[in-house]
Order: sequence, then C-alpha cells, then structure tokens
Amino acid sequence: MGMTIAEKIIALAAGVPEVKAGDIHTVNLDRMMSNDGTTHLTVDMYHNKLKHPHIADPKKMVFIVDHNVPSDSPKTAASQKKMRDFAREHNIDFWEGKGVCHQIMMENYVRPGELIFGADSHTCTYGALGAFGTGVGCTDLLYGMVTGTSWVLVPETVKFNLVGKLPEGVYPRDLMLTIIGEIGANGVNYQVMEFTGEGTKTLSVNDRMVLCNLAVEAGAKTAIFQADEIALEYLRERGREPKAVFESDPDAVYAREYTFDLSKIQPVAARPDFVDDVVPAKEVCGVRIDEAFLGSCNNGRIDDLRVGAKILKGHKVSDHVRFLVVPASQEVYLQAMKEGLIEIFMESGAIVMNPNCSVCWGSCQGVIGENEVLISTGTRNFKGRAGHPSSKVYLGSSATVTASAIKGEICTADQL
Amino acid sequence: MGMTIAEKIIALAAGVPEVKAGDIHTVNLDRMMSNDGTTHLTVDMYHNKLKHPHIADPKKMVFIVDHNVPSDSPKTAASQKKMRDFAREHNIDFWEGKGVCHQIMMENYVRPGELIFGADSHTCTYGALGAFGTGVGCTDLLYGMVTGTSWVLVPETVKFNLVGKLPEGVYPRDLMLTIIGEIGANGVNYQVMEFTGEGTKTLSVNDRMVLCNLAVEAGAKTAIFQADEIALEYLRERGREPKAVFESDPDAVYAREYTFDLSKIQPVAARPDFVDDVVPAKEVCGVRIDEAFLGSCNNGRIDDLRVGAKILKGHKVSDHVRFLVVPASQEVYLQAMKEGLIEIFMESGAIVMNPNCSVCWGSCQGVIGENEVLISTGTRNFKGRAGHPSSKVYLGSSATVTASAIKGEICTADQL
Repeated sequence: MGMTIAEKIIALAAGVPEVKAGDIHTVNLDRMMSNDGTTHLTVDMYHNKLKHPHIADPKKMVFIVDHNVPSDSPKTAASQKKMRDFAREHNIDFWEGKGVCHQIMMENYVRPGELIFGADSHTCTYGALGAFGTGVGCTDLLYGMVTGTSWVLVPETVKFNLVGKLPEGVYPRDLMLTIIGEIGANGVNYQVMEFTGEGTKTLSVNDRMVLCNLAVEAGAKTAIFQADEIALEYLRERGREPKAVFESDPDAVYAREYTFDLSKIQPVAARPDFVDDVVPAKEVCGVRIDEAFLGSCNNGRIDDLRVGAKILKGHKVSDHVRFLVVPASQEVYLQAMKEGLIEIFMESGAIVMNPNCSVCWGSCQGVIGENEVLISTGTRNFKGRAGHPSSKVYLGSSATVTASAIKGEICTADQL
Repeated sequence: MGMTIAEKIIALAAGVPEVKAGDIHTVNLDRMMSNDGTTHLTVDMYHNKLKHPHIADPKKMVFIVDHNVPSDSPKTAASQKKMRDFAREHNIDFWEGKGVCHQIMMENYVRPGELIFGADSHTCTYGALGAFGTGVGCTDLLYGMVTGTSWVLVPETVKFNLVGKLPEGVYPRDLMLTIIGEIGANGVNYQVMEFTGEGTKTLSVNDRMVLCNLAVEAGAKTAIFQADEIALEYLRERGREPKAVFESDPDAVYAREYTFDLSKIQPVAARPDFVDDVVPAKEVCGVRIDEAFLGSCNNGRIDDLRVGAKILKGHKVSDHVRFLVVPASQEVYLQAMKEGLIEIFMESGAIVMNPNCSVCWGSCQGVIGENEVLISTGTRNFKGRAGHPSSKVYLGSSATVTASAIKGEICTADQL
C-alpha cells in the first residue's frame, strides 16, 4: 500500500519501511524548537525532575526568544535569562529579537523530509518546505531533548487539491481562511493537510507558509506540500540540502479529499472570536477599527509588506487607528528597508516594530483595551487574544488590513 | 538691576517689565505638553472635578503617547484611549508612536523665549532652544489647560561658564554627568542652570539638549542656553520663528557661578543607583553587563546613533548582551535609515525598536531582571528604574554604551 509524504517522513524517522495511519512509532527527531513561551518550564523540569539530566544532541535544539521581546517585566527577564543561560551552557543555538520563531526556522533550519517538534502550535508551518513540523507541549519537548526521540501516532492525511490561480488582489491568506471557514475549526483534527495539485505551482514557499501555518486552526496535526523545484530553489538560495524529498504514492490512502479553485477565492475576513467564522470581507466592511496589525509568522513576510506598502503609498493611516507593522524577521526587515518599504510605512503613520510576535500574541505589545477592535494578519482571533476580553479581533489579508488602517474601518483594498 | 534669560522669559510671560528671584508671578503659558504617563489623570480630573470644564486654548496643548507604545496591557490601552479621544474631541495636537515627547516638542514646537509647562520632569530640555521649559504635575497642567495661565516662583539662576572644547571621543553626556557628579543631585535645587561662555559655541542644539535634559537630575527648575545663531539656524530649518531672543544682562544676578573646561572632560559613568555617583568610566570597566541601551530623550538623536554605529561597525554585539537601540523620534529613525545606521545596528546584533521611552522608563520594554546589569544612555539609574529592585543601571555616553555592548562588560570605546 502506498504512503503519503507525511507517512514517508514518519517511516524514515522511525527507521521502518512502512507506516500506516493509526500506527504508533518511536521516531528520531531531526530538530526541536522552543521559544520563550515555555522554554523556562522545560529548563525547570530538566533541572528538577530528571535523575540524570543530559541532552541527546544539542545540535538538534534551537531556542528562540520572540514572544516578549524585548522583555516586558522582571519576571519575563528572569525566564528569558534561564533560557539564555541554558542555551549557552549546553551549546544550543540561541536567537533573540531576530524574528518570530517559525520564520527563523524556515530561513535557517528546516529541510524537506525532516521531522521537527516545536513547543509552539504553529510549528506546522514547516510543511511549506516538505517537512513534518508539529507543535508539542514542553514535557514532550523535554523528552525529545533528553532522548533525541519521541513517539508519533501516525495521522490520517486529507488531500487538498488546489487548482487555478488566485485572482489579482486575493492572497494565500484569503485562500486559507476560506478553507478553514469551509472545513471548520475541527475540520481536520489530528490529520495532515496535504496541499497538492497544479494550483500549488502558483504558490511560492512564502505563500505555502501562509497555508501551512494556519493548518492548526483547523485542528490539523500538520500540513505539507511536496518539496518541488520551488521549494528546492528556496533551499539552495540558503545553502541547505534536503534530508529527503518525498512525494505521495498514487495509491496512498487519504481520509478525504477537497478541491479548491483558487480563481474563485475572494478577499475574506474571520469574524471575532473564531478563526472559522469566515465571511466575504465585504460583509464586515464599515466596522470601525482602533488598531490594525500587519505582521506575525502567518503574514509578516516581505510579500506581505510589499502588498501593504503598495496600498499605503500616497495614503495616510487614519488618525484614529494605530497601525502596527512588524516584519517577521530581521532578514525581512532588512529587505523591506532596502526596498524603501519601511520608509513608506513610517511616513504614512504606521508604527514599525522590531521583529517579534507583537499583538498576535497579545501579551505586551499593541494590546487593545475594552471594546476596542483590531483587524489583524495574525494567527488567531479568540476572545481576549489581543487584550481585553471585550475586545474584538478580525482576521484579514495584508491588503485588507492595510486598506482598513487607511479608512479607519474595515474595507477591502478596492474600496479605497 | 539686570535680568537673566530665564527672568526675562518669565517677565514677558507675566506681562511685567521686571522680575526678581523670589517673586511669584502669574504667567501666560505658551505651550503645555502632556504624555501618556499622566494625561489620563488630567482628563479624569477635567471631567470629574471641574464645575465648568473648558480649555483656554487647545492650540497651546500637545498630547504625546511615548511611554508605553504600543500599548502593553488593556489598562494602558484604556488610558491611552482616554487621552486620544480627549485630544480629538478638543482639537488638541496628538502624537502617538512618533517619538519621545521632548524630541517631538523640540522638532516641532519649542521656540526661544517661550514659557512651556510639561507634565514630565525632563521638560527642562527645551532650554536648548532658549525656552523656559519645566516639569509640572498633572494638577498644575490641568490648571494651565483650563486657564491658559499658571504661577511661577522666579528661581535663582546659576551660571555655568563653559570654556574650551570636548576632546575627541568625549561627549556632551560625559560633560553633563561630570557636572552633576560635581554639584550633586541637589546641587541646583529649584534654580536655573544657565550655560554660557565660549564653550557653548562648540555645542549643537542636539548637544545642548543633552545638557538641558539632565538638569533636573541636579534638582534644577530648568536649564537654558541663549538662543544664538546655532539655535536660530535649527529653528529656521524647521520653519519656525522665535517668540523672543533674550540674553542675560551684564549685571544680572546669579546665585553662583561654575566654570567647566570642556577640554578636561573624560568619559564618565554614573554608578547605580544615583545619577550623581559619577566616576571616570575606566573605574567601572570590567563590570559584566546583561543589557545595553542606546536611546532616550537624553541620548537617542542622530548624533548618538552615528557615534554608536561608527563604533559598532565591523563588530558584533556580545552574545550575552541584549543591545537595544531606540531612535528618539521617527525623524531620527528615518535619517538613521537613510545613512545606513539602522542596517549596521541590526546586522551587528542590536534590537532596533520603534521610537519610544523604552527601558529608560523601565515599564514594559527591555525590562531587566533580578541582579541584571544595564548600561544606558537613559536619564536615570535609580533603584529599580529599569526593572527588578536588585538590578543595576550604569549611565554612560553612546560611545561607552556601544563599546560595552560589544565587549559584554563596561568599557570605553578606546579599549576595544
């Protein structure tokens, strides 16, 4: 019986010729990522719960400070120090203030065919390069760190057949929100979303990251694209080699199949407080906003900043809106600066921040108050996610967010 | 009997021919500035304590959000919203995320001869342009806002005669810390520091801001330079006219006089926890640091960033140091970007933040933890100012801070 890409990655990591959905396998992990959300907990357990603490292979570990950076309190400073000191002591790669963890991982580490655990739910992003990335809790990460291994219950795979090409002014984020709206927040619980079909050829690795990143919002264990020439070119540009390049067998087993015609996708928005409450963006036009956010591991890449800057140029941010622009990494920031985008944002009235999770995380930067409304390119719009429990978050594309920042109420770019 | 510059400004504002130290006068205020530290309190009192609330002249008012920007909590968001809504309702100039209040005021408002109240202790900065700026509490600001007037107990003036020129590698910040170290934190309590003498001709307006800004750290009511050709040129470049250009009369009365020879000044540092505990920087060399901060209304201007970037170029920030670089305003940021400085900072490992008070304010950005050590170009190093009560803050020049960030311990630039 054939296997899907995800199954082949698990089989390789398990050292077995074949795996099937429903099997449990012990796997060697290729890489583990942990950020400042939970690393201090992992480190505490490492020191306090283990009889014989050691690290299987420090080279597999990456620690990234991206959530509260720079530190917002003495408590945060202390937990980040714990992480920093541990990384130094154990020769673990350590990044601080250089970008959102998944962007750093994609720019510097992820290789096709790898099995990667990250102590962050959006680790599914790595499927954009044909890797199996999945989020785990910090206890699982600790086990992986100590043994270099973990276990995987092989998930079923659901096929998402993409055909056609997105229309001008419609973005991968509109596509993925549309998919989530259609299948629901539990639509692919503990399953793999495999994106395939001719439509994938119209999507860059950055585009694919947008899709894979949000897979967890539909409950997915992960999402994955085949590492095709587009992916391998991204890899070559960064001087990396694939671990293994897999494609799904013709007789691989899928739990279900969906087909999405990209040419039919329109600008959409997810309404508060659920990522799957997706409507055509035009339906929420006119909602007055207090803040707009262009950034995050979902939508803070150079493509997104280009879209935003192009719309913003010659306009001003509405005087009742705080428009936060937060490049997903320093690499993205430097590129945007080179292209003159940062200047456009600043001169139009945006606040351009150092690369970090910002208000997508909603903990200390750009937090909104009682009854305030945010339109965001972030990952989630759950109740209170961006601040006060009564505040509201709408999710939209870079274009919709920027247009709304200009108008002061939700609108699409073609309505400016 | 002659008058000093400060006395002439007060006389003009009081509409009287002459004032003397010790007199109390009612004065017309030219401008009032209020930031997000206290404006919500002023607004609350305006709404809840006044029988007939009104604003004498909204054109005199400037509201600036700079302390916690972007908002760090729902509570902050609410108090900033109060400020924003009030400004909009009353046609008050409103700035958010564009820079530290005093930098914004100097770039856009301050004119020689003006009497300006600001609800922030470092309002004394405006003396760099020959204005009388002083910090007041929010109740005094409320009174000024409602009536357009206030009262001033005319302060004595102390003359600081500057001679010579600062040596290469020594900065106005070294000079001012040296002065404060010599006269002490209460050295000029409720007095005006008047900087005069040939040495002033070697100082740009930006340099003079460094001196005036820290005057409050020696207890001064304000500090002031004569608005000479250097100041008037700064003003012309920004399309502003002076209100009045004053010089002190030859027979003006001074409480005391000091002379400082600029050519004798050396790099210095203020040790924790007092701004006036000033020693030659070399005496504290070797102190291991956790964080370095280049920014603030005292030392976040283009000159300071140029000094830092020149030292940093070709080096890397020490791997155990967070180096925060925070331009004092968006104008400074854009200029630094144009000159390639932001790129140098980022590529060397610094975190470049959006213009704001950052860790100088120590509330939500760059906060340091237990026993951590910061070297800073900020305004103050009081106990707990930057975070945990056990943390320590050293103050030094942009050059010393940058050199220390590279070495990972306090050092001067010539020790690299």
